[in-house]
Amino acid sequence: MAVGDSHFPEMPAIGGLRLGTARAGIKKPDRRDLVVIEVGEGARVAGAFTRNAFCAAPVILAREHLATCVGRGEGPRHLVINTGNANAGTGQVGLRDAAATCAELARLAGVKETQVLPFSTGVIGEPLPMERLLAGLPAALEALDDGPAAWRDAAEGILTTDTRAKGASVTLPLGDETVTINGISKGSGMIRPDMATMLAFVATDAAIEQSLLDALLRETLDRSFNCITVDGDTSTNDACVLISTRRGPAVVGEEAIAAFRDGLQRVMTELAQAIIRDGEGATKFVTLQVDSAASRREALDVAFTVAHSPLVKTALYASDANWGRILAAVGRAPLADFDVDRVTIDLGGVRLVEGGGRAAGYTEEAGSRAMAAEEICIRIDLGRGEEDATVWTSDLSHDYVSINADYRS
Amino acid sequence: MAVGDSHFPEMPAIGGLRLGTARAGIKKPDRRDLVVIEVGEGARVAGAFTRNAFCAAPVILAREHLATCVGRGEGPRHLVINTGNANAGTGQVGLRDAAATCAELARLAGVKETQVLPFSTGVIGEPLPMERLLAGLPAALEALDDGPAAWRDAAEGILTTDTRAKGASVTLPLGDETVTINGISKGSGMIRPDMATMLAFVATDAAIEQSLLDALLRETLDRSFNCITVDGDTSTNDACVLISTRRGPAVVGEEAIAAFRDGLQRVMTELAQAIIRDGEGATKFVTLQVDSAASRREALDVAFTVAHSPLVKTALYASDANWGRILAAVGRAPLADFDVDRVTIDLGGVRLVEGGGRAAGYTEEAGSRAMAAEEICIRIDLGRGEEDATVWTSDLSHDYVSINADYRS
Repeated sequence: MAVGDSHFPEMPAIGGLRLGTARAGIKKPDRRDLVVIEVGEGARVAGAFTRNAFCAAPVILAREHLATCVGRGEGPRHLVINTGNANAGTGQVGLRDAAATCAELARLAGVKETQVLPFSTGVIGEPLPMERLLAGLPAALEALDDGPAAWRDAAEGILTTDTRAKGASVTLPLGDETVTINGISKGSGMIRPDMATMLAFVATDAAIEQSLLDALLRETLDRSFNCITVDGDTSTNDACVLISTRRGPAVVGEEAIAAFRDGLQRVMTELAQAIIRDGEGATKFVTLQVDSAASRREALDVAFTVAHSPLVKTALYASDANWGRILAAVGRAPLADFDVDRVTIDLGGVRLVEGGGRAAGYTEEAGSRAMAAEEICIRIDLGRGEEDATVWTSDLSHDYVSINADYRS
Repeated sequence: MAVGDSHFPEMPAIGGLRLGTARAGIKKPDRRDLVVIEVGEGARVAGAFTRNAFCAAPVILAREHLATCVGRGEGPRHLVINTGNANAGTGQVGLRDAAATCAELARLAGVKETQVLPFSTGVIGEPLPMERLLAGLPAALEALDDGPAAWRDAAEGILTTDTRAKGASVTLPLGDETVTINGISKGSGMIRPDMATMLAFVATDAAIEQSLLDALLRETLDRSFNCITVDGDTSTNDACVLISTRRGPAVVGEEAIAAFRDGLQRVMTELAQAIIRDGEGATKFVTLQVDSAASRREALDVAFTVAHSPLVKTALYASDANWGRILAAVGRAPLADFDVDRVTIDLGGVRLVEGGGRAAGYTEEAGSRAMAAEEICIRIDLGRGEEDATVWTSDLSHDYVSINADYRS
């Protein structure tokens, strides 16, 4: 199950970047499960990683290698991503396996080991099947290409419980030239913010210097991947990477930066929303918009409290306009001096709550009609200030329980 | 579905307290849905109420009336509880209805309106069916009795989605005499701490002065009802009331207070655990014990982060010893300077995690055997300090989704 159409965009080539995918048989035979992204010399890369205290071996190593590259003023040359096995909770063996993967790819491609960034996703706690993984690397390198099929294969090659490949692409004018931003992402469960909560790889040919690239990643992340939640669970492996191959025009000056940031935000938000549309068992795509908060933190607190409420999520699944559950969830958000009489809650265009209770004009019929839609916006106005936040989430269905009660069996 | 046996204890009489139950047809015909608890003159009553900012009309009024009684040094004389309708999110109409209920009961019983404390539980946002509710009061008063059947009827009369009546009783020696502590509770969904997260009424004949009664309620609450969670949702109506009828011996002196506190804690904990055993869709009763934390707050944070994880809860439902999900949930708890290498996680008697990954001696077979039990203890040792906390929760099953997707229909 998933919400909305499953169209994968035709990705234009990005100069200085190629992708290769192979079937290494890491968990299941004959599925794409190993991806190499090759980045030309002189590229700049920014990364954001999970804040989970138990972070996986590849996350530890990718962070170290990226810091080494940035410190030396050189770009990473390869990203290597496997699905089917997260190499998490694997202790020293896991670190050794991730390092061995980087070393073998470095040897095959003739680059430094520290110029390879490793990523893994899948089951936690099993050792990587190193023989099969290393044996798959030459095929992935051989497949390297910059065409739309290579993007699509890579998008498929990073999926786990996802039911569809996720991609987004934007082309922008920049001065007299154009730049392209392509991205792919994966994620369906164990999705909650607190830093990039899934895998996402975004690349542009625009030339962006390191500190600006880092800033752009953080800014756009905070309003995309850090604003989605399926189940409130943060993964041990999440990472989001932004690559500038610097083959295109430079992003300099306030106006160009603003235009590029807008384009990047569109790609990041579309990729983040694609994860929610494909959330485990999702039958609804829900936008939670909190307005008139005293701070953005407070707006996010209210939005996530509602988004994580199992009672709200099951009501969404049932298409039940149970405004009492939304109101109860808003009421337990951690806000000081919260005057509930100022709160209004709207669903679609229908006013549900005002003055501390059910809105005067509300009818069950209007509520049910709004709730029946596959894409739903719940707007909560706190009447306390000027700040806002938007969070995206899915509902809690029987399929969610089935998927997660059966995942390892 | 529910976990463990559903035995309801034979409650001894408590001098100075009678209970009466009626069938008022508030939501469904012919079920016990209206309860009056009559308290003799000179009793003392302590109360704890929901911290939800949207609190229901009866909560507002019960809190006000109790404060008035305490201020005047007089005890409340009646508690009136209806199920089937929460009188929450009902604005001014709801406050008027709750006040009218108190006024009518006061008139019938010849007490002051402020000596009546109202409680409601059930659907949010519907007006109370006042005609039927008021018409039911005389029958409830007529039924007043202190025998075991009256306790059992009252325990049934406060249920909503619960599948069983919940009661606990302890008799303690106090000097040369004995005192009794009886309690009943209700709750099955929308269960999470942050102050008494359900309805519970506990009474003793022991004579306890107001300030000690208040302190005892808070202390025992913090290690019982404030340590349970089904779904992380705090209700708008929750309340816990402790009544001392003062017909028995006085609780004075350190030793007597400690003995009474222990007995009270046993009753409170048993009632709280009964709510989890009857948690919506529960197939498992799970104890989360966090040891060696730097503070109790931190121990509770870790315990609740794990207890609220849908991925851990679905793994419990599937009897899948998916220690990776437990580890990932521990890792996202909000702890500063968290060294995961010191953490150990045990399930039943089986060591799952040590040294940042799977324990050396762990086998899937041992994990599966421990997971198969209906009552499971997950012990998490943080290796950071001397504090601990215990939290009780249930699993996330298909029935949980069914119950909450269908509740209003």
